[in-house]
Amino acid sequence: MHSELTWTDRRVPELLAEVRAGHPLVHCLTNVVVAGFTANVLLAVDASPAMVENSQESGEFAATAGAVLVNLGTLSAEREVAMRAAATGAAAAGRPWVLDPVAVGALAHRTRFAGELLAARPSVVRGNASEIMSLAGAGPGGRGVDSQAGSDEALGAALTLARAAGCVVAVSGAVDYVTDGADVVAVPGGSPLMTRVTGVGCALGALVAAFAAVEADVLLAASAASAVLARAGERAAGGSPGPGSFAVALLDELAALSEESRTVAGG
Amino acid sequence: MHSELTWTDRRVPELLAEVRAGHPLVHCLTNVVVAGFTANVLLAVDASPAMVENSQESGEFAATAGAVLVNLGTLSAEREVAMRAAATGAAAAGRPWVLDPVAVGALAHRTRFAGELLAARPSVVRGNASEIMSLAGAGPGGRGVDSQAGSDEALGAALTLARAAGCVVAVSGAVDYVTDGADVVAVPGGSPLMTRVTGVGCALGALVAAFAAVEADVLLAASAASAVLARAGERAAGGSPGPGSFAVALLDELAALSEESRTVAGG
Amino acid sequence: MHSELTWTDRRVPELLAEVRAGHPLVHCLTNVVVAGFTANVLLAVDASPAMVENSQESGEFAATAGAVLVNLGTLSAEREVAMRAAATGAAAAGRPWVLDPVAVGALAHRTRFAGELLAARPSVVRGNASEIMSLAGAGPGGRGVDSQAGSDEALGAALTLARAAGCVVAVSGAVDYVTDGADVVAVPGGSPLMTRVTGVGCALGALVAAFAAVEADVLLAASAASAVLARAGERAAGGSPGPGSFAVALLDELAALSEESRTVAGG
Repeated sequence: MHSELTWTDRRVPELLAEVRAGHPLVHCLTNVVVAGFTANVLLAVDASPAMVENSQESGEFAATAGAVLVNLGTLSAEREVAMRAAATGAAAAGRPWVLDPVAVGALAHRTRFAGELLAARPSVVRGNASEIMSLAGAGPGGRGVDSQAGSDEALGAALTLARAAGCVVAVSGAVDYVTDGADVVAVPGGSPLMTRVTGVGCALGALVAAFAAVEADVLLAASAASAVLARAGERAAGGSPGPGSFAVALLDELAALSEESRTVAGG
Repeated sequence: MHSELTWTDRRVPELLAEVRAGHPLVHCLTNVVVAGFTANVLLAVDASPAMVENSQESGEFAATAGAVLVNLGTLSAEREVAMRAAATGAAAAGRPWVLDPVAVGALAHRTRFAGELLAARPSVVRGNASEIMSLAGAGPGGRGVDSQAGSDEALGAALTLARAAGCVVAVSGAVDYVTDGADVVAVPGGSPLMTRVTGVGCALGALVAAFAAVEADVLLAASAASAVLARAGERAAGGSPGPGSFAVALLDELAALSEESRTVAGG
Repeated sequence: MHSELTWTDRRVPELLAEVRAGHPLVHCLTNVVVAGFTANVLLAVDASPAMVENSQESGEFAATAGAVLVNLGTLSAEREVAMRAAATGAAAAGRPWVLDPVAVGALAHRTRFAGELLAARPSVVRGNASEIMSLAGAGPGGRGVDSQAGSDEALGAALTLARAAGCVVAVSGAVDYVTDGADVVAVPGGSPLMTRVTGVGCALGALVAAFAAVEADVLLAASAASAVLARAGERAAGGSPGPGSFAVALLDELAALSEESRTVAGG
């Protein structure tokens, strides 16, 4: 079944209100480029970010977190060990975890590593079209961290990957698509400025984790996180003369939506 | 003795003016989430940040810095070696150094590591209530990086820790408390938005180091750094619609206070 | 020959327009403090940043990138291996690469490492006066990451280094100087606020790489990158009450110049 989800669907602010009320602890193993922005995005919606990426602590910590994010942007030998421990720790403890396969397909090493992590059963894989197509075996991957394809071109690959890996797959693009292998949810909106700021896609992975921490229906959780970010992006783009002020406004708008969600959900 | 310190106490702008004039070199071994923001906070008050976190350089560098910050946020095997070298290098050279025990109590590995670093005699330990209570042996620690207790609940633990470790202890919260085990200085003010931006507490650790580089009375240095940040936070919160713009305004206000301090101190 | 280059020289916006059109992939091995800001600067001018800093991937990736940046700010054992692989990978594939020798001279280990990297023939070395003087064997280096000398004092050292290393050398300061050992291009402008935000110099290294990816005349590429940043800095300083808002405005102005370059180059 195909459907569409936006902020105007009551379930979206209701879930955001649950994040606001629950302050889910999101354990992020992410890349050094976006770590600060990712933490600020989570704080803006009242989630509780914690970046624990060393091998001695990540497995233990993942088991106590509300959800875990594993983002492959800047790998290192130690970070890979920590990511394996976090993924298996989360899976063993029944915690949702999100895999963001940055630049998979463009580089052989991380493509193998992502394949290995898939075996630990992520709840959600979130990536751009090239990354999802590569993981599904349907394409050669992108150039660096950018996609060479549109999200609509990756929809077939997303369905294939979701079925093969037994997880929800979210493809980011002009329209985001989220699927569990059967149903497909399209999330329109956002702004082209979201591609001119580093880490917006990575931060979406973190938001998906935060929503999955409070909502067991992972397809809904991932779609709602996408819809919240799309709405914040539209609102932020309105008053922003460029990408610097857009990044600042995006955080302000996420916090404003979090505040508004209380009213919507309580109304 | 209990006292209170705010920006209106002439010693606060006077010390800020000394930082402005002296450009103390602050050697930061901090976490990847907040490294950029920390550097910008130090630059805003005209201090000179340098992040040297590899094991071959950190001991040598610590001995030449005005002060050293060791923040446990994102540990790694190499960073731990570098932190040991920096702490002992600073101590051997008689340089003040600040320990920020992020998430200590919540995780066994870093709790042990923090205990080990305490033996190298930090000048100041700065943390939230849960972290200080855990280090003092008075509580189980927080959840992730957040405190589960208010700063006033940790005052007893701060006194205990200050006496046991022979250092100044600063507990951050709605009111900051700073103690050397005998006197207690309360620093009120700030803004709730300071908890909605990642790295504000970590940046306070860096400010404390900058102030300790120019002022031998460590209790005064740590309290004054807190009072400067509290004042900047209040002023920044005034015109900020959300956490994104607040983080930007906080840097602007710190720079403005630095500029104003020249007049106050010279007046 | 001595000359001067600014935004008003038609070649500057023309090269910026080429970056805008070509989206050069810039492989950055940079420090954790400035990684996010560097990526945002590259995105603002429509280049495509990718931070791949692990030893298994960096050599392979460098050979496919438009240009490579190696910035020594925060070294680690693994990052050093990755930097060697990237430098030699870029050189072997005939890709331009830029060396940013942060704090060289102030620390023995990185001074040796920078010497080793020089043997892999960077296209450009970009640094402050102390760093360039130290690399040229003309001075003891700075204090931490700051220069103890003005860029004009380092001009002789820049010429010496350019001839000895067979590369272009760019010295940042109140006036930037860029030389290939024969000609010297002075780039005036910018703003003192550029030294109050972490990573502006590091981001210039990344811009130089982006320009070198689209222009074979490396002296022109490096000078033009400097001229673009100087212009953006002047414009950003105009409306900024402090360093926080300046950093935001700098990204906005870079994006605006990129947009304007289309018209200039097409006019």
